[in-house]
Amino acid sequence: TMSLPEGYTIRRTKKDDFSGVTSVLKVLTMVGDVSQDQFHSLIDHWDSVTIGDIPMYNSTVIVDTNGEVVATGNVLVEKKVIHECGLVGHIEDIAVRKDQQGKKLGLILIQYLYKLANEYGCYKVILDCDESNVGFYEKCGLKKAGVEMQIRF
Amino acid sequence: TMSLPEGYTIRRTKKDDFSGVTSVLKVLTMVGDVSQDQFHSLIDHWDSVTIGDIPMYNSTVIVDTNGEVVATGNVLVEKKVIHECGLVGHIEDIAVRKDQQGKKLGLILIQYLYKLANEYGCYKVILDCDESNVGFYEKCGLKKAGVEMQIRF
Ligand SMILES: CC(=O)N[C@@H]1[C@@H](O)[C@H](O)[C@@H](COP(=O)(O)O)O[C@@H]1O
Ligand SMILES: CC(=O)N[C@@H]1[C@@H](O)[C@H](O)[C@@H](COP(=O)(O)O)O[C@@H]1O
Repeated sequence: TMSLPEGYTIRRTKKDDFSGVTSVLKVLTMVGDVSQDQFHSLIDHWDSVTIGDIPMYNSTVIVDTNGEVVATGNVLVEKKVIHECGLVGHIEDIAVRKDQQGKKLGLILIQYLYKLANEYGCYKVILDCDESNVGFYEKCGLKKAGVEMQIRF
Repeated sequence: TMSLPEGYTIRRTKKDDFSGVTSVLKVLTMVGDVSQDQFHSLIDHWDSVTIGDIPMYNSTVIVDTNGEVVATGNVLVEKKVIHECGLVGHIEDIAVRKDQQGKKLGLILIQYLYKLANEYGCYKVILDCDESNVGFYEKCGLKKAGVEMQIRF
């Protein structure tokens, strides 16, 4: 496993990360208008739902030496009937700030998230991505498993 | 949209569905040893986590005229930062009893789940499946969106 650049830290997302997280996520897709209040309510929701002691949401940030958010991602833990009431981790909303690419932050973040999921006892971790990102996720240790399908409203 | 065969009903999964749900899910994958107590704790968890008024888990069963569970599926609702703190529905663990195939129960179940997700305000519903099930999900109104990747522990 890789290590973070000197002085960078990785930790759970908190309310103070409002502007950092909303801005880094613009690399991934449409963020739109999110107010500080909406973000704070989201963090309250993320912090409130658990499976016993396990947080369902595990939104994580990597912060640089200036205290700025440079990458973010989440792993949502779901409890199922199958696999003996098994847990599955869904890796979601991975984004790395454009000017920080080449430092392996994406790899470190993904490995951090699936290590978390493994410690929680998940029997697998899954994610969905574009065909163009398959190579990156393979380097992170994932393998193709199936097809993502959607309906948009 | 299709309608259920005469006398069949569709509703949220409850504790009494222990043997029906665990047995129908064997069509999909490994269920393993699940005790009634474990199932009841799972239902308690499923019923306890919400996003405001919206249940995060929406496990659903179709029940036949004898009161037996003949199909089951879930839609897990996730709240994100992206898409203005948007909601996404994850359709999971769809199974129809082998001897009930040909009655469009799978189609009715999927449409029921994505209608729920739509009513909750989700901006999209996604699911992962094998390449061999793409045709079925296309008939249900979904389109290919990406690649599912996994790590198993
Ligand atoms: C591994 C990863 O980060 N996958 C993301 C997913 O988590 C995110 O929610 C989605 C947003 O796309 P959308 O704007 O089309 O909903 O893109 C990608 O599939
Ligand atoms: C739409 C649908 O029902 N997809 C299911 C998924 O929900 C389920 O959790 C998984 C179990 O497979 P596993 O036993 O390999 O984890 O199979 C399929 O991908």
